[in-house]
Amino acid sequence: MNNYLQTDEWNIIEEGFHADKQCASESIFSLANGQIGQRANFEETYSSDSMQGSYAAGITFWDETVVGWWKNGLPHHYSCTPNSPNWSGIRVRLIDEEIDMAQWEVDAFRRELHMRTGILERTCQITSPKDKTVQVQVERFNSMDEQNLCIIKYQITSVNYKGKVSLIPFIDGDVTHESANLSKKPWNIIKSEVSNNGAYIWTQIKRETTQMCCACQYQLFKNEKEITKGPIKIEKDKLVGYSIGEEIKPGETLTLYKYTTIESTLYIDRNLLVTEALKNAQKAKEKGWLQLKEAHKQQWTRIWDECDVTIEGDAKAQQAIRYNIFQLLQTYQGKDPRLNIAAKGFTGEKYGGNTYWNTELCCVPFMLLSVPFPIAKNLLLYRYHQLGKAIKNAELLGFTKGAALYPMVTANGEECHNEWEITFEEIHRNSIIVYAIDQYVRYTGDHSYVVDYGLEVMIAIARFWQQRVSFSTIKNKYVLLGVTGPNEYENNVNNNWYTNYGCVQCLKLTLHYLQEVAEQRPTEWANLMDKVQLQEKEIQDWQAIVEDMYFPVDQERDLFLQEDGYLDKELKSVEEINPKERPINQYWSWDRILRSCFIKQSDVLLGIYLYYTNFSEEQIKNNFHFYEPKTLHESSLSPFVHAILAARIGELEKAYSLFMQSTRIDLDDYNNEVEQGLHITSMAGGWLAIVEGFAGMTVKKDQLHFHPQIPKEWRAYSFRVNFMKNKLFIRITDKSISFRLEEGEQATLYVNKKKITLIYQKALTLKI
Amino acid sequence: MNNYLQTDEWNIIEEGFHADKQCASESIFSLANGQIGQRANFEETYSSDSMQGSYAAGITFWDETVVGWWKNGLPHHYSCTPNSPNWSGIRVRLIDEEIDMAQWEVDAFRRELHMRTGILERTCQITSPKDKTVQVQVERFNSMDEQNLCIIKYQITSVNYKGKVSLIPFIDGDVTHESANLSKKPWNIIKSEVSNNGAYIWTQIKRETTQMCCACQYQLFKNEKEITKGPIKIEKDKLVGYSIGEEIKPGETLTLYKYTTIESTLYIDRNLLVTEALKNAQKAKEKGWLQLKEAHKQQWTRIWDECDVTIEGDAKAQQAIRYNIFQLLQTYQGKDPRLNIAAKGFTGEKYGGNTYWNTELCCVPFMLLSVPFPIAKNLLLYRYHQLGKAIKNAELLGFTKGAALYPMVTANGEECHNEWEITFEEIHRNSIIVYAIDQYVRYTGDHSYVVDYGLEVMIAIARFWQQRVSFSTIKNKYVLLGVTGPNEYENNVNNNWYTNYGCVQCLKLTLHYLQEVAEQRPTEWANLMDKVQLQEKEIQDWQAIVEDMYFPVDQERDLFLQEDGYLDKELKSVEEINPKERPINQYWSWDRILRSCFIKQSDVLLGIYLYYTNFSEEQIKNNFHFYEPKTLHESSLSPFVHAILAARIGELEKAYSLFMQSTRIDLDDYNNEVEQGLHITSMAGGWLAIVEGFAGMTVKKDQLHFHPQIPKEWRAYSFRVNFMKNKLFIRITDKSISFRLEEGEQATLYVNKKKITLIYQKALTLKI
Repeated sequence: MNNYLQTDEWNIIEEGFHADKQCASESIFSLANGQIGQRANFEETYSSDSMQGSYAAGITFWDETVVGWWKNGLPHHYSCTPNSPNWSGIRVRLIDEEIDMAQWEVDAFRRELHMRTGILERTCQITSPKDKTVQVQVERFNSMDEQNLCIIKYQITSVNYKGKVSLIPFIDGDVTHESANLSKKPWNIIKSEVSNNGAYIWTQIKRETTQMCCACQYQLFKNEKEITKGPIKIEKDKLVGYSIGEEIKPGETLTLYKYTTIESTLYIDRNLLVTEALKNAQKAKEKGWLQLKEAHKQQWTRIWDECDVTIEGDAKAQQAIRYNIFQLLQTYQGKDPRLNIAAKGFTGEKYGGNTYWNTELCCVPFMLLSVPFPIAKNLLLYRYHQLGKAIKNAELLGFTKGAALYPMVTANGEECHNEWEITFEEIHRNSIIVYAIDQYVRYTGDHSYVVDYGLEVMIAIARFWQQRVSFSTIKNKYVLLGVTGPNEYENNVNNNWYTNYGCVQCLKLTLHYLQEVAEQRPTEWANLMDKVQLQEKEIQDWQAIVEDMYFPVDQERDLFLQEDGYLDKELKSVEEINPKERPINQYWSWDRILRSCFIKQSDVLLGIYLYYTNFSEEQIKNNFHFYEPKTLHESSLSPFVHAILAARIGELEKAYSLFMQSTRIDLDDYNNEVEQGLHITSMAGGWLAIVEGFAGMTVKKDQLHFHPQIPKEWRAYSFRVNFMKNKLFIRITDKSISFRLEEGEQATLYVNKKKITLIYQKALTLKI
Repeated sequence: MNNYLQTDEWNIIEEGFHADKQCASESIFSLANGQIGQRANFEETYSSDSMQGSYAAGITFWDETVVGWWKNGLPHHYSCTPNSPNWSGIRVRLIDEEIDMAQWEVDAFRRELHMRTGILERTCQITSPKDKTVQVQVERFNSMDEQNLCIIKYQITSVNYKGKVSLIPFIDGDVTHESANLSKKPWNIIKSEVSNNGAYIWTQIKRETTQMCCACQYQLFKNEKEITKGPIKIEKDKLVGYSIGEEIKPGETLTLYKYTTIESTLYIDRNLLVTEALKNAQKAKEKGWLQLKEAHKQQWTRIWDECDVTIEGDAKAQQAIRYNIFQLLQTYQGKDPRLNIAAKGFTGEKYGGNTYWNTELCCVPFMLLSVPFPIAKNLLLYRYHQLGKAIKNAELLGFTKGAALYPMVTANGEECHNEWEITFEEIHRNSIIVYAIDQYVRYTGDHSYVVDYGLEVMIAIARFWQQRVSFSTIKNKYVLLGVTGPNEYENNVNNNWYTNYGCVQCLKLTLHYLQEVAEQRPTEWANLMDKVQLQEKEIQDWQAIVEDMYFPVDQERDLFLQEDGYLDKELKSVEEINPKERPINQYWSWDRILRSCFIKQSDVLLGIYLYYTNFSEEQIKNNFHFYEPKTLHESSLSPFVHAILAARIGELEKAYSLFMQSTRIDLDDYNNEVEQGLHITSMAGGWLAIVEGFAGMTVKKDQLHFHPQIPKEWRAYSFRVNFMKNKLFIRITDKSISFRLEEGEQATLYVNKKKITLIYQKALTLKI
């Protein structure tokens, strides 16, 4: 657990330098803008533990797979977003000494991530081994206004030093991707040059055609006066930059502005890549620091107006929920359906920058409810465009006739995970894709999505399920053998309740939407049937499975069972585990984890959460009280689900503690791994815990419902939700719920089952 | 399937060159002598498909593990017997052309493995692209008399060529270990030199201390006359040898003898390594080809006198069983308890030259019954000496108090397999080690082994089982969750019948021998109790498990079940699989294999075979008829077990076909993989199928029983078995069984339950 960060409602603050936490801080203070992002590596040289990381969305490096070699159907390649050329570096020399916070004394230090403005700031006073003392102040941002720009203001003020300071802004293409197998150096350098128009490195990813160009310009000021004398050009094979020297004395300040553009062939034709990169760096320099910063801040103001959440009376919770929203919207801006939300965003190498089912589980509902609908729609279209590859993926595993299995991990639709128990067996991932389509329709009312895109995906997934089930003669039911549920602490089980349930829901939804489209859009329906060649027999098969699927249950205790045989385990509570052995995945051998009753994230509770309209409060209670004590929450996807259910059954203390665990998982480093990067996708979970948990928001029969509650730690909380054509502002205290309709003419909704109607901009407060 | 080899009772013959089968032939014609061995690579250059392989027993290369990286308890290194310096190379040049059977026309070709003498012979006539025609005859052997020697006679006779022939015997240290991850070149070369005493390469395995030295001498004859003029020395960094040129004309013959010694620090102090290698090469040269060959042949005569098996009337079966015996005894001679029997012996890289449970399952019984007892005892001692590491291995997985888990794959006792479903879960391997100890005692009568070594191993294994079981409250029985049985086409199952049964047998045997030793050897018992600190509570726990273990059964059909839930599968017969999709592990995705009913090798039938005294013929029949049709036999350990059981229930046709599959698995290449190497360990299975299957040999209450039968394809068959102090020769026809007691004064045994008594060297024939 971390506890070195200060609590503040709008900022993340490290006061005093925590060198032992530097890798954690590099993750926590990460910056991004949906297109580029980087860890909070210091600009200047830092010779101690650090994990360098700069990433650009949509750029893929195909690495060699080294596991599971002999099992058919596993992919031969693994994709990852490679570590990009380091564009944020600025070395600083004071004649014979170079600034290196690992070697210099740190007299004072403050690092601050300003979430309101998206600016990272560092101020420190440091003393060299030879006793030169300077103050450094750095501000940087990745522009939310022009997403190809990383802008840095680097200021150095002498305390006791008199002499020359050399500032060396550079771009380094010789970066290492630590977790790569095939080549630790992902980039071939096509050209590196320092021209009069800027310094640039032009690179191509190894074995692929994607190219990138990073170009930079700079400005240097001494005190208030710009220094325009020519710099020394640094032009190496894999590194370019400038060295600009200037004399200073105590009290004097040098200020360097570094304007870097990061361009790739994702958006620019390769013939124009260098020209555009140089031009844009030049343009940025012409606009200058203040103008760029202002435009960037305005975008953040817009974002916060759209989706800020307030929590009054609990600064830790307030800080955390803003941090989650901030990081999520730094990672994804929804402008390009080729992009998705990496599990660790732009904050580390783990999970390779790839897409997981986390997107549909957490991010789609958050985006749907928080930001304009086209953003969530782009996440859905990402999967739609990859349908062909999902069908190919299923074919590799022996499925036929257009059955689709979406990948567990992917960059471009091809599977690139290769542990058989996950790749082949964690097939529940197919269900959440259908769930997301249905949710999109239910929240937006946009039924045309179904006929244009969604139904085709659903049919392909239904075909997969039909081929994947088998019929057990001794049970006289359909069964799903050999699966791994979301609880990855069980592998290759039979009849995982969640997977079986999800399968049936997929088939039901497919049948439902098939009928809807047939009735309401007969022409499009006929075209689609022509395209997918759906047979009547298939529909009958789906219906048969819906009717006759087997579910493992304990009727006595009214429980849904994790899977067949779960009750053979020694049933214990997580509290019985020695705390020194947690998280158990870092201490226990895999077999011990598998045969224990302990659950990484609860499948059954997840199913109850997702398909909540089908379960009674009694059922939630029974299952929650059975599974929650056995759940380790060693998946970041776990606590928010439990928080929501705890709130729904009125157990607010439990809900609050799970909410805090979900929301502060990285700030407090619950699972002792934040140095690897942030849990970006699950950051949506904290928001869902507030809205769907404490505020009790549900959608039933296309109507919005609230059952507001408030944790005793809070005085009040507020948030906004989009639903259909409306945007609502909601504030809840322990006594009341207030509404303001910010978009839409009129809205009808239910508070504790009581119908209310809102009028545009007219506030309404109800007692609760 | 292969069908290019000729059938012959004493030889393996390839008539005509089958270039497309060269890799397969390299495996099939492999030579070894228990200490060194190599694939049948041509001596001269061969530029087409080939897998170079020379191996020395007991030498280990630690390679990097690249799978399962994040799962605790998996080993970080994988051991393998590295590809050794190539000691059998002889290049041949005819001025401007070099012999290369891939490039030259092969006019005639015959390759023959003489199993009676252990000599590999090749005769061929070949024509170069420029029309030079020569005949080549090569004989080679790895001396069974002096196990550090590889001896080659290479003869070239001109048909139409007049000019110089250069013969270049060499040793090449720059070899590639194809399947290595960390370094494809396993050897550092310490020194390579061509001195007057011979050419040698002195190497050290990377990252380890083991050293090896290969040294060679040669003799050259033209027609009958020795050529003694000085050769050109070839002395490169990683290759040494000689080039010896001589003019020949049509009808003339050059004969090169290459005498190579392969020495290592396993047997020679590193300071003496080079000296000894050179001295031994020189000594071999002095003895000369004829004397060395004679001594080698004498050893093979002794071996065949000891354990030849005859089958009359079925040359294919006769050839195959001799081939199996030949390959087994080439691989293991039982002289060094640090050595074991690699799954592929010295015939390929697959399985890394490591020890598997195959040894105890097949090889220990074969060795016990066929060759002097100390040989099998050394196999047992191998495990005894590794007990400490087996305890460490269990500790890594969280077990305590001296519990031992023997490794699945090992060179020196450390686990080096790393697929979790096998490494962590295929724990049945512990049982066969206890089984082997018990079998040794039952066959040899050597009870002192128990007190000196065996019981300590048993106690450690019993401790493992006690910690590994758990108690199911709903079953009110002990269960074993999360295991993989010998049928590796199921992973992470609960209550695998074979594993549960083996666990109970281990505990029973441990309790039995504990009592025996306590009663009969009280002093040693007290010492052992002092050493292992056994508690009374442990004994009670073991008894409780013996009494209350759960076994999955189908009572209706009187079946033992593969595991919990097996009957939920769609039960099909192997015949329903498209033959083009077999072996299924080469065509089906892993999940499809796992959820199918198809069995790689049948656990239940294996258990019934091993613990046969506990089961009725009716039980064998029921289970055999249920499981055999579902069994793929895609493990080489499978068919012989089924053959034995089929014979026991009188189904001789089935038994015969399974026997042939087991015995000719490599000659006929049943599983389409012989090019990777031979199934050495399972070669004992064919022998067991004859003796325990057709001849119906069992041991009940320390008495030897036979229930002789004969397949209709055979006129008669004979074999020898060691039992207690006796060696019996047995011959069976369709009408009679004959005995001759070759060692021991007198023996009592049972034929079809009728007691008979044999007297030394007095023949006895009974009608059957």
